[in-house]
Amino acid sequence: SILSSKLFNMSVLLAYLSLQIQFADQKQEFSKRPSKIGRRSLSRSISQSSTDSYSSAASYTDSSDDETSPRDKQQKNSKEIEIAEQEMPALMALRKRAQGEKPLAGAKVVGCTHITAQTAVLMETLSALGAQCRWAACNIYSTQNEVAAALAEGGFSVFAWKGESEDDFWWCIDRCVNVEGWQPNMILDDGGDLTHWIYKKYPNMFKKIKGIVEESVTGVHRLYQLSKAGKLCVPAMNVNDSVTKQKFDNLYCCRESILDGLKRTTDVMFGGKQVVVCGYGEVSRKGCCAALKAMGSIVYVTEIDPICALQACMDGFRLVKLNEVIRQVDIVITCTGNKNVVVRENLDRMKNGCIVCNMGHSNTEIDVASLRTPELTWERVRSQVDHVIWPDGKRIVLLAEGRLLNLSCSTVPTFVLSITATTQALALIELYNAPEGRYKQDVYLLPKKMDEYVASLHLPTFDAHLTELSDEQAKYLGLNKNGPFKPNYYR
Amino acid sequence: SILSSKLFNMSVLLAYLSLQIQFADQKQEFSKRPSKIGRRSLSRSISQSSTDSYSSAASYTDSSDDETSPRDKQQKNSKEIEIAEQEMPALMALRKRAQGEKPLAGAKVVGCTHITAQTAVLMETLSALGAQCRWAACNIYSTQNEVAAALAEGGFSVFAWKGESEDDFWWCIDRCVNVEGWQPNMILDDGGDLTHWIYKKYPNMFKKIKGIVEESVTGVHRLYQLSKAGKLCVPAMNVNDSVTKQKFDNLYCCRESILDGLKRTTDVMFGGKQVVVCGYGEVSRKGCCAALKAMGSIVYVTEIDPICALQACMDGFRLVKLNEVIRQVDIVITCTGNKNVVVRENLDRMKNGCIVCNMGHSNTEIDVASLRTPELTWERVRSQVDHVIWPDGKRIVLLAEGRLLNLSCSTVPTFVLSITATTQALALIELYNAPEGRYKQDVYLLPKKMDEYVASLHLPTFDAHLTELSDEQAKYLGLNKNGPFKPNYYR
Amino acid sequence: SILSSKLFNMSVLLAYLSLQIQFADQKQEFSKRPSKIGRRSLSRSISQSSTDSYSSAASYTDSSDDETSPRDKQQKNSKEIEIAEQEMPALMALRKRAQGEKPLAGAKVVGCTHITAQTAVLMETLSALGAQCRWAACNIYSTQNEVAAALAEGGFSVFAWKGESEDDFWWCIDRCVNVEGWQPNMILDDGGDLTHWIYKKYPNMFKKIKGIVEESVTGVHRLYQLSKAGKLCVPAMNVNDSVTKQKFDNLYCCRESILDGLKRTTDVMFGGKQVVVCGYGEVSRKGCCAALKAMGSIVYVTEIDPICALQACMDGFRLVKLNEVIRQVDIVITCTGNKNVVVRENLDRMKNGCIVCNMGHSNTEIDVASLRTPELTWERVRSQVDHVIWPDGKRIVLLAEGRLLNLSCSTVPTFVLSITATTQALALIELYNAPEGRYKQDVYLLPKKMDEYVASLHLPTFDAHLTELSDEQAKYLGLNKNGPFKPNYYR
Amino acid sequence: SILSSKLFNMSVLLAYLSLQIQFADQKQEFSKRPSKIGRRSLSRSISQSSTDSYSSAASYTDSSDDETSPRDKQQKNSKEIEIAEQEMPALMALRKRAQGEKPLAGAKVVGCTHITAQTAVLMETLSALGAQCRWAACNIYSTQNEVAAALAEGGFSVFAWKGESEDDFWWCIDRCVNVEGWQPNMILDDGGDLTHWIYKKYPNMFKKIKGIVEESVTGVHRLYQLSKAGKLCVPAMNVNDSVTKQKFDNLYCCRESILDGLKRTTDVMFGGKQVVVCGYGEVSRKGCCAALKAMGSIVYVTEIDPICALQACMDGFRLVKLNEVIRQVDIVITCTGNKNVVVRENLDRMKNGCIVCNMGHSNTEIDVASLRTPELTWERVRSQVDHVIWPDGKRIVLLAEGRLLNLSCSTVPTFVLSITATTQALALIELYNAPEGRYKQDVYLLPKKMDEYVASLHLPTFDAHLTELSDEQAKYLGLNKNGPFKPNYYR
Repeated sequence: SILSSKLFNMSVLLAYLSLQIQFADQKQEFSKRPSKIGRRSLSRSISQSSTDSYSSAASYTDSSDDETSPRDKQQKNSKEIEIAEQEMPALMALRKRAQGEKPLAGAKVVGCTHITAQTAVLMETLSALGAQCRWAACNIYSTQNEVAAALAEGGFSVFAWKGESEDDFWWCIDRCVNVEGWQPNMILDDGGDLTHWIYKKYPNMFKKIKGIVEESVTGVHRLYQLSKAGKLCVPAMNVNDSVTKQKFDNLYCCRESILDGLKRTTDVMFGGKQVVVCGYGEVSRKGCCAALKAMGSIVYVTEIDPICALQACMDGFRLVKLNEVIRQVDIVITCTGNKNVVVRENLDRMKNGCIVCNMGHSNTEIDVASLRTPELTWERVRSQVDHVIWPDGKRIVLLAEGRLLNLSCSTVPTFVLSITATTQALALIELYNAPEGRYKQDVYLLPKKMDEYVASLHLPTFDAHLTELSDEQAKYLGLNKNGPFKPNYYR
Repeated sequence: SILSSKLFNMSVLLAYLSLQIQFADQKQEFSKRPSKIGRRSLSRSISQSSTDSYSSAASYTDSSDDETSPRDKQQKNSKEIEIAEQEMPALMALRKRAQGEKPLAGAKVVGCTHITAQTAVLMETLSALGAQCRWAACNIYSTQNEVAAALAEGGFSVFAWKGESEDDFWWCIDRCVNVEGWQPNMILDDGGDLTHWIYKKYPNMFKKIKGIVEESVTGVHRLYQLSKAGKLCVPAMNVNDSVTKQKFDNLYCCRESILDGLKRTTDVMFGGKQVVVCGYGEVSRKGCCAALKAMGSIVYVTEIDPICALQACMDGFRLVKLNEVIRQVDIVITCTGNKNVVVRENLDRMKNGCIVCNMGHSNTEIDVASLRTPELTWERVRSQVDHVIWPDGKRIVLLAEGRLLNLSCSTVPTFVLSITATTQALALIELYNAPEGRYKQDVYLLPKKMDEYVASLHLPTFDAHLTELSDEQAKYLGLNKNGPFKPNYYR
Repeated sequence: SILSSKLFNMSVLLAYLSLQIQFADQKQEFSKRPSKIGRRSLSRSISQSSTDSYSSAASYTDSSDDETSPRDKQQKNSKEIEIAEQEMPALMALRKRAQGEKPLAGAKVVGCTHITAQTAVLMETLSALGAQCRWAACNIYSTQNEVAAALAEGGFSVFAWKGESEDDFWWCIDRCVNVEGWQPNMILDDGGDLTHWIYKKYPNMFKKIKGIVEESVTGVHRLYQLSKAGKLCVPAMNVNDSVTKQKFDNLYCCRESILDGLKRTTDVMFGGKQVVVCGYGEVSRKGCCAALKAMGSIVYVTEIDPICALQACMDGFRLVKLNEVIRQVDIVITCTGNKNVVVRENLDRMKNGCIVCNMGHSNTEIDVASLRTPELTWERVRSQVDHVIWPDGKRIVLLAEGRLLNLSCSTVPTFVLSITATTQALALIELYNAPEGRYKQDVYLLPKKMDEYVASLHLPTFDAHLTELSDEQAKYLGLNKNGPFKPNYYR
Repeated sequence: SILSSKLFNMSVLLAYLSLQIQFADQKQEFSKRPSKIGRRSLSRSISQSSTDSYSSAASYTDSSDDETSPRDKQQKNSKEIEIAEQEMPALMALRKRAQGEKPLAGAKVVGCTHITAQTAVLMETLSALGAQCRWAACNIYSTQNEVAAALAEGGFSVFAWKGESEDDFWWCIDRCVNVEGWQPNMILDDGGDLTHWIYKKYPNMFKKIKGIVEESVTGVHRLYQLSKAGKLCVPAMNVNDSVTKQKFDNLYCCRESILDGLKRTTDVMFGGKQVVVCGYGEVSRKGCCAALKAMGSIVYVTEIDPICALQACMDGFRLVKLNEVIRQVDIVITCTGNKNVVVRENLDRMKNGCIVCNMGHSNTEIDVASLRTPELTWERVRSQVDHVIWPDGKRIVLLAEGRLLNLSCSTVPTFVLSITATTQALALIELYNAPEGRYKQDVYLLPKKMDEYVASLHLPTFDAHLTELSDEQAKYLGLNKNGPFKPNYYR
């Protein structure tokens, strides 16, 4: 039965029951939906949004699921959210500051993101600011069931559980949107699947929608394509490229997750290891290269862009072609956003025990497909760790099958998710309250000033004290005392 | 029954059976041993040696025990050992170099160490060098059952399983030693329990024993006490304090494990965090402080020794008393070797969410006992992570209950264990082959030259090329061209 | 006489003589120029361009002037230029690559820059590419007389000597431009004084001028003002803001010059020093802060922009208001581009011996004027070092009277000047050869592709090997295989 | 005449006159001293002690000598000493603490050190503690004449001037010692020349001498030779090897002076440079290698000791033989203490422009003599910088002719000299006050506790707050609460 296959443990029961109350047996009807939804499109969507996804910092609770009674679990749920609240002070501050005005009063937000304790804090914040919310998961694996249950119990309409099938995935999204007597006027998306679904199935809904807030690289890409094709019919806010989010996702997060991801999967010692990093962009630059250098690794860099290449040189890394060092390195890391950066020929030449992983923007950087040949043996030695074994016994250690190491094998600190969630909340407020005409049917970056506001909300965490411009200084610099302080392109 | 209580899964069956063949029902007899063996002494021994212990880098295999059939497991066992062999090139080189001569021919070694894949590589090396080995575990938790099984199957007498009781622990040690027709002439100990047992039960055995090799701080301390009391009746080699081992255990290992241990337990983001490190010795200095600084933490240091304090200053750390910063820091790390460095008064003043952990030499640094009071609530949130909750809701995050973070919450890379194992092997060779009179009934450091040899055996891993002194240079420096190159105290 | 006052040593005689041949007694006539040229404007121009100026790496030769005979000096001149050539491989490569085509054939370039060995290499390169050049100095102090002499002897028309008066300064510029039978068609300016002069005196010249290449912040600012006012009548290339130049001038150069400038002036030990850096932009970020942190200083940061502030936090610096730490710091460094960042009130509170200096974009950051009061005593203790003494005996160590430390008290490595000079040469080539209509009467950034070309010309210095995109990869990324590889705003 | 040849400016006149008062025409008599004092021995002594010497941080004042009137100079003298006092807080604290007791009452100290402002602060401190002092210079070049003058005027008997001849050198030392009615009972030496002189000329003096305090490597070496030969007739304190001094001289000082020395001499940019450092001992380890790595250089290391080699690997440096990288590196630095580390064969293979310098313990590391061959041309391009030119035009940049870069081309911060001077003062106090029998006729290290005291006296400079052991903790550690805290060999 549906129940037995889906609800693999007691802990999601409460969530499920709360769903039942809302949509009763609509499910039966829905499951008759035409099967002509393109498989290709579907699997692409799912895999792409999972490419952008992350394993939440709180994911550890899963492993103890079986040992906990539902009652304890329930208490734990609130606790997880409560703990997340402590590490997301910016959202809490936002709740407090906007308390009187309710800037989202009247907003009806449909959301499609990872369902985690951090998302719960965001949803509760949106609610406190006046919005009504309905939510689905953007990834079939990432839902924390206890959190979904706690949200459901708290009155939120959440359609998600861990381990959804593809059918479930779209069914949940549809449940979010397709409800009698309630029409969304704001979209919060992560990966573009929700937006895509509304375009396909309920295009008329866009008449009442004031805007889309999109977080992921993939989703933003899809929005720009819509815009280019003249098909974007509401304003969209690209929060993925806000400065604050970018810096955290790329630099500050990767600086720590490259070490964490490698350590958790391989227990490798960094000191003295020879590492080649393909690409010297923002992720790689201070992220991977600086962290590994600090731990005593010897780092080589490959680049195609001479400006980035020169920066690698000046930062103290030998700039090489991959083949020059491929025989000698202990670790190969790709961070290019390009495809086929590490190909079979390279893999053939690596030394025994070489670790290969990807920190770039997609799962195309390592040509993993080329390793699926009969003469090579694959051996899964741990979760996310495969040994690929050559006929002569040489082993390559492939991490996360070439998907993103930082998302697959490391955790994302709540503080980073706080940056993102605050950015999303502000983008919703901006789009919802913007005067007629400020935003056209196009894709926008978050206004610099709001980006700066996101940052300022996170400074108290560090007991950091900002200096204020004097009137005289503001005049001298030609700036407003309250910002924005830098041009939009400034990084 | 014994079987059911002890053998919690199929995987140790083979090991157990091989034991049975050897000692049959001697167990019954043994279990009648007088119960007057001091509880206090026993528990101290066990806890102390577990203080010195580590969770091996290979421990991950445990979690998948239940999903694997014994047959597969058996293949996996050899694989684990095989993989370890690849990362312990020094032992493999030693096997090769000493092949002809068998420098341990005639040696009968009783060992008491952690039973892991790395130990298996050591035992097989000792065997290849001519020794006979009998082994027990030095820690009741750390045995990798598959490895024990594989060793047993390979003909080694190994008495150990994961999750031994105290009775089991001593029984295993006794089995190692007390066997008809075979008397040990060398001891390899980690923690001193094996040595202690022989002193207590079979003091006459020392007549034939040529020496003791001891690895741990605790065990070495006990040897020095014996020596001081005039009771040490054979030469002992303190390999814990060899330069190479010290550098790796303290500096190179802790530099990585402080980050790893904190990340795995708390997913904390290091960037911007305020951290106070108590003590600025070798562990702390480049280990903890440098690593955290490199990750963007702001690090404060406390010290009692003005020379170390001045070094902290010059290295760019504010030197403070703990109370000056206790209210503001996010993480407190002890690395002093002292006791009660962090006491209840300090803990009372920490801010909500403060993480407290220990990287020192014992579990006395944080006064954990002071937190066991009725008004404080303890909540276990993950393995090795407790929240201690004050009446006002403030939570302190206590890691590993104040035991060593690096050993409890991080892994020890095989490369580090390789350094130790090579040092142990060379110490055995040295003591076994030393001419009469070179070593008296005292505790010795590994001769500098052998320490240098351990290091040189590990250089090929880094494709490192040593320069050789010319005759003229050796003469100028007053050195032998082959070393030792530095005085014994040189670090 | 003119000779005795101006030519303070023999070494510029040759240069002077070569000038005489060209313009004979035109000087007399010129000196009758109307004195109504605004003093204020003049001094501003001179001080501003000197604000942007640098003391060349080769400036040391000056000190030995008196001990060298003119003959030796002459040989030395060529040698300086020859040595500079070795460190400016990009210009040499440019000479070689463009040998056949002479892309500047027909170009008549008037230049106004620092006259140094590095400029000589640039001029000789422009000449090799087909251009005719006439040159004046953009700074009254920075001319290396021997270089000017060598250039003159080599046939270049150079009007400059070290220690010009303001009158001399403008006279030289006029000589450059105002010559019978030769009209410039390209301008290469550093500070905007040459451009300004032509606007004022010979506006008709612009009819034949194809473009202006401007290097300095000040000059670029003036161009944008012209453009805004609709008065810019030819295309101008802002090479100051090219990515490569910016990275070198700000980050890579300042990272070294902050240490060098402080050391040469004060011999201060960095280890353990408490430093506050005002501003956390590009200069400060990796430049000053990272360098000082690496040397063991404890660095505090002040910021007005919350995004930069958050970055400072994540990079491990305490973010404070100046007054919080002003009493305790040993060194105060300004890098803001703002004015009155350090004011008298701050200076009054500093501790005895505190060092105060400026690494920002102008000399307004420290309110030096506020220190010119009767109760404070100024004591010049070394070149560029003043002690300002309070009535109670407290001394503040003020460097370069608040002007740029990196330009006043440190040297600029030839490699950095090579980046700039190559950029200038390429900008000249681009503007001179651009098809009609590519550039309007506006200020342009160097095309990204040429910026990348500048970088690529400097890679061989580091034996750096660039990777090339495959056709497939270029297509995947939507890029031309030869670049540009990044959007224009990418840093 | 003596006057005209020796007193090259007015500023030493006062000093000279004050000398005249004391020893009148004894000079005539002295100059009749037998000429049989071995030239070789003499020159060795002088060159050796100058090898250990430094150019003081205050040396810049020399360059402005000619522009200052004697009157101003006199004021400047006291000012220099006054400024030094501010940076030598430990000595000032010592003066204050010991004020009542005068621990050196009755001490008659003859000293032979560099005569600088810092030495003046030491002498005034010794005097304040009750000692009488007579002083000569240990180096013929390093005397700051104004300081000598100021000391003379202040009543100290100082026999030194800048630019002494060898005869002058020994004459001054003799004047120090050989005076009627005053016999020294303590020796403070730097290089051993004073001690040597007394041994040679006035061996009977040792009867009243309570001890020798020696600072330099050379001097200490000579003392150990005396001791070995059984000829040391008083206790000697080796302050060179005290922990605090060693750490500062080797690590903290070299970390900064490698950058400073290279920058002042060559203006080289560090970023991207390939550097090989020969030797990975204390100087090299954190000193040179870490500093260059932090500035963006790529650093290779050579080593003979496998333990140090392994440390280099783990710290992230490629370990190579010199010949593997000699063709590609931009900078070669020796830090070995060995001889002929860089020989002609290596120099022949270096690339054009390669910089070669020495940071080791002697001037034997680079075989400079091998470059004095007819086919090579030497060209002095700046003070301390020679270009050595091969027939094919290749230039090697040799710094300080292979002598110590840090001492020849960089300054020693006053703070480092403060450490040394405080150590010397405490060593004098200890030897002078030690009870009969504590010290035999041997060479001793400074007692650990006094070493710790030196460090503690310097902590207030950093506003550093030491933690005190509780009684319970001291007992647990088996330590006295006031130290010493570490064994003597601890670094």
